[in-house]
Amino acid sequence: MNNLISTPADFAQKNQANHLAELIRFLQIPSISTQPDHAADVAAAADWLAKAMRDAGIENVRVIETNRHPLLYGDWLHAGPDAPTVLIYGHYDVQPVDPLDLWESDPFEPVVRDDYLYARGASDDKGQVYVHIKAVEAYLKVNGRLPVNVKFIIEGEEESGGESLSAFIPANKELLAADIALVSDTGILAPDQPAIVYGLRGMCYMLMDVTGPARDLHSGSFGGGIDNPINALSHIIARLKDENGHVLIPGFYDRVRPLSSDERELLSQLPRDENKWLAEAGAPQLWGESEFTLTERIGARPTLDVNGIIGGYTGPGGKTVLPAKAHAKISMRLVPDQDPQEIAALFQKYVQEIAPPTVKVEISVMHTAPASVTDYSIPAMKAAAAAYEQVFGKRPVYMREGGSIPVVGEFQTYLGLETVLMGFGLPGDRIHSPNERFYVPNFYKGIQTSIRFLEEYAEQM
Amino acid sequence: MNNLISTPADFAQKNQANHLAELIRFLQIPSISTQPDHAADVAAAADWLAKAMRDAGIENVRVIETNRHPLLYGDWLHAGPDAPTVLIYGHYDVQPVDPLDLWESDPFEPVVRDDYLYARGASDDKGQVYVHIKAVEAYLKVNGRLPVNVKFIIEGEEESGGESLSAFIPANKELLAADIALVSDTGILAPDQPAIVYGLRGMCYMLMDVTGPARDLHSGSFGGGIDNPINALSHIIARLKDENGHVLIPGFYDRVRPLSSDERELLSQLPRDENKWLAEAGAPQLWGESEFTLTERIGARPTLDVNGIIGGYTGPGGKTVLPAKAHAKISMRLVPDQDPQEIAALFQKYVQEIAPPTVKVEISVMHTAPASVTDYSIPAMKAAAAAYEQVFGKRPVYMREGGSIPVVGEFQTYLGLETVLMGFGLPGDRIHSPNERFYVPNFYKGIQTSIRFLEEYAEQM
Repeated sequence: MNNLISTPADFAQKNQANHLAELIRFLQIPSISTQPDHAADVAAAADWLAKAMRDAGIENVRVIETNRHPLLYGDWLHAGPDAPTVLIYGHYDVQPVDPLDLWESDPFEPVVRDDYLYARGASDDKGQVYVHIKAVEAYLKVNGRLPVNVKFIIEGEEESGGESLSAFIPANKELLAADIALVSDTGILAPDQPAIVYGLRGMCYMLMDVTGPARDLHSGSFGGGIDNPINALSHIIARLKDENGHVLIPGFYDRVRPLSSDERELLSQLPRDENKWLAEAGAPQLWGESEFTLTERIGARPTLDVNGIIGGYTGPGGKTVLPAKAHAKISMRLVPDQDPQEIAALFQKYVQEIAPPTVKVEISVMHTAPASVTDYSIPAMKAAAAAYEQVFGKRPVYMREGGSIPVVGEFQTYLGLETVLMGFGLPGDRIHSPNERFYVPNFYKGIQTSIRFLEEYAEQM
Repeated sequence: MNNLISTPADFAQKNQANHLAELIRFLQIPSISTQPDHAADVAAAADWLAKAMRDAGIENVRVIETNRHPLLYGDWLHAGPDAPTVLIYGHYDVQPVDPLDLWESDPFEPVVRDDYLYARGASDDKGQVYVHIKAVEAYLKVNGRLPVNVKFIIEGEEESGGESLSAFIPANKELLAADIALVSDTGILAPDQPAIVYGLRGMCYMLMDVTGPARDLHSGSFGGGIDNPINALSHIIARLKDENGHVLIPGFYDRVRPLSSDERELLSQLPRDENKWLAEAGAPQLWGESEFTLTERIGARPTLDVNGIIGGYTGPGGKTVLPAKAHAKISMRLVPDQDPQEIAALFQKYVQEIAPPTVKVEISVMHTAPASVTDYSIPAMKAAAAAYEQVFGKRPVYMREGGSIPVVGEFQTYLGLETVLMGFGLPGDRIHSPNERFYVPNFYKGIQTSIRFLEEYAEQM
């Protein structure tokens, strides 16, 4: 080691350019897990990351084959018998890139413009998982040791159901045993405003197929005499959620844990600029349940959105068909204590009740995940708050994230672990959208924050 | 001429195999007018048909260039100054063929199975327009003359808006002047039950584009805070027509000419087997305005159908987007005296009124056509009834056709012509659908009926 480097933080500081170059190489691998023709790319990303972990000094690194995409495991367990163990989670797979024509640069040729690194996966989640590998490396390169034990479990199916990890966790409780889980797959509020996410929404993703006539028919010859599956599907969708954002499925809200006045107060401290948020979305105006604030609506309230719809003739020009079929993909974001399986059953029951007998409606559950909330007063959460404050120079606010990270619920269920969600993304990172990006200063600060967290957490325990 | 052939009917009878072979050649040309990459095929079909007309003895045959696809004109005007003139209309273009995988044989490689000729355009409308060319040929080959004057006007844009003919008619009133129009682009009820269509529905075809956020967003980060354009579009569609088939656009029914009790009685005589009709459609059950019979609903009542819808992620698997856009193609079938332009305006006004301010809704009119009804007691209608009865051995019933043939309204408006709709299709011909077909015995009987009609009409006048 260069003897001018005295601390892990210093090491990370001096190696920023290297870290960015490495991340760019990682982002060049198009590891789209949901598209079968990218399976080899997903495997290549796993191999690349395994090598990066070994190079960082992480031990026992294994590429674990599954029915689909490999899992990565690695650890460093020499902090002593009394030191706590941190289980670090992330994912190396990415979302699809369509519509490709809206990208300003190739999604897999990363470029930096105005301090943002543009690439698919930059923020979700390659950039964020790499933060912790570099933090661990800094300790091992400078001190030869870490203040805590660490285990890494990194998956390649987060964007496509995560079945392999879901099966692995209950079968490998001892391997994954830890005192706390650390997940970087979320965001902070602004470059100068760190935030700790203490809640995640769950997910219930449904497919609906509506069939009317046996084939596409001439709408003149048959129109008026038989029902149209697109009209019928529209009627069903219109009865799923009203125009003010209330889900109309009976029983949907029955198990929703009411927000306490303490929690509403905590959430209200979030410095949310609604106009800026709306400008980021690019929608004409805000919308949703008027009895809740925007912050509550997008993080602490359940929702229902149609993610895709198709039916009939969608080519250029007109075609006067009375179509045979219409399809919709519909997902519900859930909050504690909604049970995803129960919600799926309520959805199916309600839709079959309101579906007219003039069409056939088939419903299937595509995937589900429970919501989660972590107590923000536990030691690891305090350690995270202290680390953020030291690096960003500002106390973090507490927020709930509207997205879903199913593994957090699984860590709780099978390993008895609470999770600290230590994210470094920003609201404008365009995850799942064209021109995804990661704010480069947050990448560097993320590494510093992870370094501080491991130290603070060791001290708290 | 072979001196064993004594009449035009006899000539047509003895040349059935030739006529079928010629039609098969005509059907091999993929003249899909709405798809620009088939423009050369449409032109080839026009040239092929022009030659067939000349070969039949039709005079002054011209391929008339337009802004899009050519029109065909031809005539034979030597029946004498007192003889009436019949203007025969048809179209040589066809509908698109998708979904191609549902065709049991190539749509442009015609095959005969169980007396049905399978090919795109077999029934709509190549087979039907060819009937009249062969009828005229039979007269000219056997007698050297026709009992009436005839003019042909045949277009290549019927399946894609028909703008060129719409422009041609008002500008060529003298060329097209006649006493009656004859159109074969409809059907009869069953092989043994001829029918005369005396009414056609009109058309008002709208496009609707709904835009929410500026790009597809992560439904976890934004869901609950902004409106979803697919949900919004579904709410709009659900308010266009109720679940019993009533269109909810204010003013939509204001100009609908009530069905007289005489006409309801006439329509009730149609031997309609509802179960057979439903089996043909392949839908779970009948549907629509319960205060009207099925025959009335599919022919004499206006309707509204969504012909196509698309929005968000429609690929394999799931993607949790809150989509930027959703699109629908919506067409209304109109009846006398609804004004298509007024209906388009009412549609636009209503949709903009019910559209939520949380999305942007853009509406455009794709094409319109007026509905029409012909008095079933005029001489040409009586001549048609007599011709059908002589050839099919059964009196025709009277019916309204649910489809739209815009040119019928234009003949009335610009040329002052009533139209006889002399069709030979069957309800199971699958026009606009995969596996379109034409019943070969109806092709032959159609030629005989056309031959009889020209004679009967000359006698009536």
